[in-house]
Amino acid sequence: MNTYDLIMKKRDGGELSRDEINYIVNNYTKGSLPDYQMAAFLMAVYFQGMNYQETTNLTLAMADSGDRLDLSGIKGRIIDKHSTGGVGDKTTLIVAPILAALDVPVAKMSGRGLGHTGGTIDKLEAIPGFQTTISEECFVKQVNDVGLAIVGQTANLAPADKKIYALRDVTATVDNISLIAASIMSKKLAAGADGIVLDVKCGTGAFMKNINDARLLAKTMVKIGEMAGRETVAVISDMNEPLGNAVGNVLEVKEAIMCLKGVGDIRLMTVSKTLACHMLLLAGKTNDEKQAYQMIDEVIASGTALDKFKEFVFAQGGNTAYIDNIDLFPKAKYKMDILGKNILPKDKSQGFLSKCNNQEIGMASLVLGGGRETKESEIDLTVGLTIHKRLGDKISSDDVVFSLYGNDEEKLLAASKRVINAYEVTENKDNDNNIIYDVITKNDI
Amino acid sequence: MNTYDLIMKKRDGGELSRDEINYIVNNYTKGSLPDYQMAAFLMAVYFQGMNYQETTNLTLAMADSGDRLDLSGIKGRIIDKHSTGGVGDKTTLIVAPILAALDVPVAKMSGRGLGHTGGTIDKLEAIPGFQTTISEECFVKQVNDVGLAIVGQTANLAPADKKIYALRDVTATVDNISLIAASIMSKKLAAGADGIVLDVKCGTGAFMKNINDARLLAKTMVKIGEMAGRETVAVISDMNEPLGNAVGNVLEVKEAIMCLKGVGDIRLMTVSKTLACHMLLLAGKTNDEKQAYQMIDEVIASGTALDKFKEFVFAQGGNTAYIDNIDLFPKAKYKMDILGKNILPKDKSQGFLSKCNNQEIGMASLVLGGGRETKESEIDLTVGLTIHKRLGDKISSDDVVFSLYGNDEEKLLAASKRVINAYEVTENKDNDNNIIYDVITKNDI
Repeated sequence: MNTYDLIMKKRDGGELSRDEINYIVNNYTKGSLPDYQMAAFLMAVYFQGMNYQETTNLTLAMADSGDRLDLSGIKGRIIDKHSTGGVGDKTTLIVAPILAALDVPVAKMSGRGLGHTGGTIDKLEAIPGFQTTISEECFVKQVNDVGLAIVGQTANLAPADKKIYALRDVTATVDNISLIAASIMSKKLAAGADGIVLDVKCGTGAFMKNINDARLLAKTMVKIGEMAGRETVAVISDMNEPLGNAVGNVLEVKEAIMCLKGVGDIRLMTVSKTLACHMLLLAGKTNDEKQAYQMIDEVIASGTALDKFKEFVFAQGGNTAYIDNIDLFPKAKYKMDILGKNILPKDKSQGFLSKCNNQEIGMASLVLGGGRETKESEIDLTVGLTIHKRLGDKISSDDVVFSLYGNDEEKLLAASKRVINAYEVTENKDNDNNIIYDVITKNDI
Repeated sequence: MNTYDLIMKKRDGGELSRDEINYIVNNYTKGSLPDYQMAAFLMAVYFQGMNYQETTNLTLAMADSGDRLDLSGIKGRIIDKHSTGGVGDKTTLIVAPILAALDVPVAKMSGRGLGHTGGTIDKLEAIPGFQTTISEECFVKQVNDVGLAIVGQTANLAPADKKIYALRDVTATVDNISLIAASIMSKKLAAGADGIVLDVKCGTGAFMKNINDARLLAKTMVKIGEMAGRETVAVISDMNEPLGNAVGNVLEVKEAIMCLKGVGDIRLMTVSKTLACHMLLLAGKTNDEKQAYQMIDEVIASGTALDKFKEFVFAQGGNTAYIDNIDLFPKAKYKMDILGKNILPKDKSQGFLSKCNNQEIGMASLVLGGGRETKESEIDLTVGLTIHKRLGDKISSDDVVFSLYGNDEEKLLAASKRVINAYEVTENKDNDNNIIYDVITKNDI
């Protein structure tokens, strides 16, 4: 077997065997297959694609390239959750305590954000004292004691994915369904859960811009999960506007706490509950969707989910006083309101929000300091924006449509321009404001 | 401008501008564009292709990446000749003295062979004393004095091509028409001739296996030549069996000398005369093909072409006694005859040669020691084979079909197996033994 022949085989549309894929991934990971051959191979995959079997073998090879998390010490069936990423996505902070409150153990390794917003780990660090680095032993113990632990990725999980992703990122080979699916699923498989619920975002603020691509990615990942022996369900949810009312780390944590207190944006709660429902089903807590939703509503209404969140934050060293009183969180120096008249055409006094370039909202948060431009960037946790109107909402000249929070007046001005330009307004309502597009289970493929 | 965007543009089927192509070639040549990005770019080109304008710009960028040969000191219109390579191709040795005898200056930088046979330079070095390294100044002087000089490539011609070719060679991006055309033409443009005649080989022993690919490559190169201001003509000739009777360095030089003495294989002479004819036309020595062929026949019949060859060999230090008496050339230790019965099916006493895997004939010569496996390999000049029967010829059990020449009995045995297996025999004649398939001029594109 040699690399040249394998590049040529894929280039010419051939199907690679498991051994051939292992050869490529293993040799690339250990450095004996050079970047330039891998780059040519990845571009060949970009054009020729990979079938389910190849994609699964690629995923397994990457999952096996480093450590696999040993969660065998945890009692119960562990269900992982992963979002393909979007603007204002704080569902993990809501879903995890709900699941823990319902006796589904949540053992989550989470990433830091790169790009327009922080990751779950960045958001949790907005809570004073919260520790995201704990040993694997303590991690397992906490999941058994509290039912929930979320830590930064410390173990050497799927190093092949890390190396391959870095190469794809500079060779224009990122946007291929098989490569995206394998990248996500390799980390999920290595992270050791028994079942996986995926939140595939679809829209202007997501990697998948249209429902066909989103559905293809969802199906590919569900198939990989099945072939790798982990039951997987994918929810396809809207990302044509930010999810919930807040974008920015402190602002999002506060919003998540309010959701657990029962005061949540309807779209954000719909996504959170849908994900939680399918996690309950996979965990075997019920067979009935309706009952799952009832269980979820109950732990929110009773305050059990909020208590579980506090217990979890306390266990990881965080100050729970901030959860009881979210006004304790630090605030940005400046607040700037964007009014309807800033967005409406000059000759109109009202209209409907019809479209949002959601990526620009994420960029506005980045410009304010809420995201990382490079891996080394420090995040300003207090900045961001709150959204008071949704797509499809009527806005009038004097309505406050958004509020921006920043610590630098120039950045605030730059961000406000991006937000204003990101939206389109029409005379009549033309947006249905969908939130859940589809749910893909193993029966759909 | 940045590399990532340019890779993506080509990946998505976009047309690159001259500046964009220069950016890629220049940065790659100087090392600021890494191999892995170039590899991804080349694979994108493999799939998306390049149009004539892009291919010409790529060619020019590569031609300008190093020195351009300054032939302005040479009197007359210089016509270069290039073959895409094949088995037994010794046309340069025949065509060059014919042209020089007809007052067309021949100033040729030639390569060494890599793979199944030696290059023109290797073949010339089979003549004792022959020097292939002379200064650019002496080179120009010799062309003016003798009308003909052939030297090894000393100048830093098209280093970008060299670097890009080495990368293509390990990333399965060699066989793309635009990249092949640009590679060949960049060196021809840098080598400074006024007009270019190309010999595009087509068949089992050539890079282009079928006439469609050969025609596409020919047209692309003729178009590049035209766009770059050098009139170019491409002859498409057969390479489904070796050209001429000899394969191997000494054997081929001897055959070329015999051709100049008027005793040449018909197919080899047809290709040589066709090339010479179009070179004469491009040089402006005549407008009439028929007259060109007459001129060529005359310098062969009169011995003027042979004299020119001797004058040329003498000027470069070679011993012309070998030309007068080709039996002086050193011979291989062993000769092995392959008879008809070695090739015919067991139950047949005669048949017709119908097909030849010509690449295997080249490999047989390589196995005997006549070619280079790596750049550093030493060539055994005496080994090779002679071919006594052509495709379409009738063979009987006791006919000598081939003779192999070698200095190692084991290698001889291995080579003989390759040769025997390379041929197919049929009961009835089914091969027309074509030699010239097409001639592509600027009027054909």
